[in-house]
Amino acid sequence: MNWEDLFAKRVSATKDADILKILKLSEQPEIISLAGGMPDPSIYLIDEFKMAADEIIDSNGRQAFGYGAIAGIASFREALAKETTRMGRQTDADEVIVTTGGIAGIDLIAKVLIDPGDIVIVGAPTFTASLHVFRSYQAEIIGIPLDENGMNTDTLAEALENLQKQGKRAKFIYTIPSFQNPAGVTIPEERRRQIVALAADYNTSILEDAAYRQIRFEGTAPPMLAELDPENVMLVNTMSKILNPGMRLGWVAASKQLIDTLVLAKQGQDQCSSTIGQFMAGKLFENGLVARQTAVAIDVYHRKRDVMLRALEKYMPKNVSWVKPEGGFFIWLTLPEHIDTAKELDRAVAEEGVAYVPGSAFHHDRKLQNCMRLCYTFVSDEKIEDGIARLAKFFENIMMRNH
Amino acid sequence: MNWEDLFAKRVSATKDADILKILKLSEQPEIISLAGGMPDPSIYLIDEFKMAADEIIDSNGRQAFGYGAIAGIASFREALAKETTRMGRQTDADEVIVTTGGIAGIDLIAKVLIDPGDIVIVGAPTFTASLHVFRSYQAEIIGIPLDENGMNTDTLAEALENLQKQGKRAKFIYTIPSFQNPAGVTIPEERRRQIVALAADYNTSILEDAAYRQIRFEGTAPPMLAELDPENVMLVNTMSKILNPGMRLGWVAASKQLIDTLVLAKQGQDQCSSTIGQFMAGKLFENGLVARQTAVAIDVYHRKRDVMLRALEKYMPKNVSWVKPEGGFFIWLTLPEHIDTAKELDRAVAEEGVAYVPGSAFHHDRKLQNCMRLCYTFVSDEKIEDGIARLAKFFENIMMRNH
Repeated sequence: MNWEDLFAKRVSATKDADILKILKLSEQPEIISLAGGMPDPSIYLIDEFKMAADEIIDSNGRQAFGYGAIAGIASFREALAKETTRMGRQTDADEVIVTTGGIAGIDLIAKVLIDPGDIVIVGAPTFTASLHVFRSYQAEIIGIPLDENGMNTDTLAEALENLQKQGKRAKFIYTIPSFQNPAGVTIPEERRRQIVALAADYNTSILEDAAYRQIRFEGTAPPMLAELDPENVMLVNTMSKILNPGMRLGWVAASKQLIDTLVLAKQGQDQCSSTIGQFMAGKLFENGLVARQTAVAIDVYHRKRDVMLRALEKYMPKNVSWVKPEGGFFIWLTLPEHIDTAKELDRAVAEEGVAYVPGSAFHHDRKLQNCMRLCYTFVSDEKIEDGIARLAKFFENIMMRNH
Repeated sequence: MNWEDLFAKRVSATKDADILKILKLSEQPEIISLAGGMPDPSIYLIDEFKMAADEIIDSNGRQAFGYGAIAGIASFREALAKETTRMGRQTDADEVIVTTGGIAGIDLIAKVLIDPGDIVIVGAPTFTASLHVFRSYQAEIIGIPLDENGMNTDTLAEALENLQKQGKRAKFIYTIPSFQNPAGVTIPEERRRQIVALAADYNTSILEDAAYRQIRFEGTAPPMLAELDPENVMLVNTMSKILNPGMRLGWVAASKQLIDTLVLAKQGQDQCSSTIGQFMAGKLFENGLVARQTAVAIDVYHRKRDVMLRALEKYMPKNVSWVKPEGGFFIWLTLPEHIDTAKELDRAVAEEGVAYVPGSAFHHDRKLQNCMRLCYTFVSDEKIEDGIARLAKFFENIMMRNH
């Protein structure tokens, strides 16, 4: 069998192996990888996890190793409803579905809402894996440029108006309002209100990805879009940043009508998320470990962000720019227009031993070639400085050669 | 927002809430549920799990709480390749992808192979959740009736020939060759060879679901289809029956060309399966606990199957028939034609306190209304006998009233 003969059309739409190639690269220990958006492995409160695991296996083992309810086990849904309420959206347990990480939530929503050719509006740039999901459901993707305050609402209003004139509407607007992946920017309250009003005016919904919201180093958090319009906004979140990614847990909070349909769809995705993981994570919310683990993450990443910002100031040529993120995992670099970061990646790794994610991986039309995403959370402080110095030297040489 | 306005077309194709309703019912403790295909919660080797969890957290915690490779962590892929080889298909680690349970593997395969309107051949009856997946990708489903030896190869040959005459071909034939869910039947070796030959002749592939294969009580295992044609057969399996469902782990073994594409697709499904779960399950293969846990399951389910068979012999009216399964979880009952088990379910639960899954839930055209699936693994021996007695009385009354 030549399997390519059997592939569905969506496969060619998603044949972007960039991120995979980079994740492979970043596994080599001699490479300084500023690419993958991975937590610092040193932050995990291992002993406390072990105690919680033992307690759960002792007290709930026979349930925890069985199948759980498709929507999630009751106590964990309650804990997530409470957390979502704490974050600003008043939420009942039956407005929550547990998912196998954040992307599984986005996949589930796309499965329920997107027919081939349906329109989805995203930031340009936006999270690669979300683009992958929307492409895999053969959505038509409209990108709205970001500025230092996130998605540009003038351009968004124009796009929505254009669609309406053509008798079309978008299924939803996908946005990561806080510490955006990859751009690091945060949408201020006023603009959040505009986005919510625009969605309502043009009869579309919003998919708010709050993956990084809880990792704030400084400043005041603007309200979630899901707080401003709980009925019209689907909130997707993950335990990966506030606890750990290895347990693969996330959640969607939304209108009960939608949640019920997501539960039906989850039967055909993975039936239920890890039962033992849900029991454990529920316990860790209850005993305060989620809050403590998040506080450790914030401390460490705050320091590392500052290390990276100082290194950028110190080493980068004047014609490279970035926006200082108030939280999250990433800094987005903009280089001179003529530089193609995707084209240079192989050589950056081979010659300088440093990896990043090229800007085009985050763009629905593979543009923003002169940008790149740097992650400061994974590698050590020393390697951040060393990595930025190497990157700066590498691109300085390219600029000098070309001018 | 009225969310129904936004739903994709696939939602209406999968709006079958039967199983959900039943799973809800079976949560009430006073109901004897022979419905859900759930393991006996008493079989888990809890203390051994706890020791393994502690060891993994101590020795691999910092890795185990991070993201793992999309295809699965290397040591667990190795263990699964070894297990698949032991089962009869010579398999390398790079021919394996780890999935979040068996259905997530089927979802991934469907995502990569099915465009709307593509043809998938299934047994009639077949596993509800797999039907759900194929419907969600808007496959055209052709059902091949089962007899006591599984999928009827004469009808299969006819269907393939008809398709060829119309210039069409099926993307794959989905089959559960051992202890089929729901019918309990096993395809003998000779017929397995015919199915593999037919697929090759008509240029289609096979999706072999081996979920129950390792739970054999007696007799000799025929070779897997994936052993007979490793290149053309995709093998999907799950840890749910040989270890436990709560960890949500499964795998696909297939041609490397296909596996590489499944890995790309998994980026947009759940990015990676539980890292901590994979470390643990790998350890449990290594220290022999998977084999011991499987042996316990086989012992307990063998006894329970016999309890159910004896109760059926004792209580069921003469015009109810079934095939004795040599393994797995299920017995399939065929009642007189005029009985509609879906219509009677509510009353069976309300009046007799006993639940089953109606036959139509397993049929691509919602036929086989006079059949039902009974699961003997979940409830106690006493409740199996009591449940069958109640069911027999309930349907005997219906038959007497109608004749």
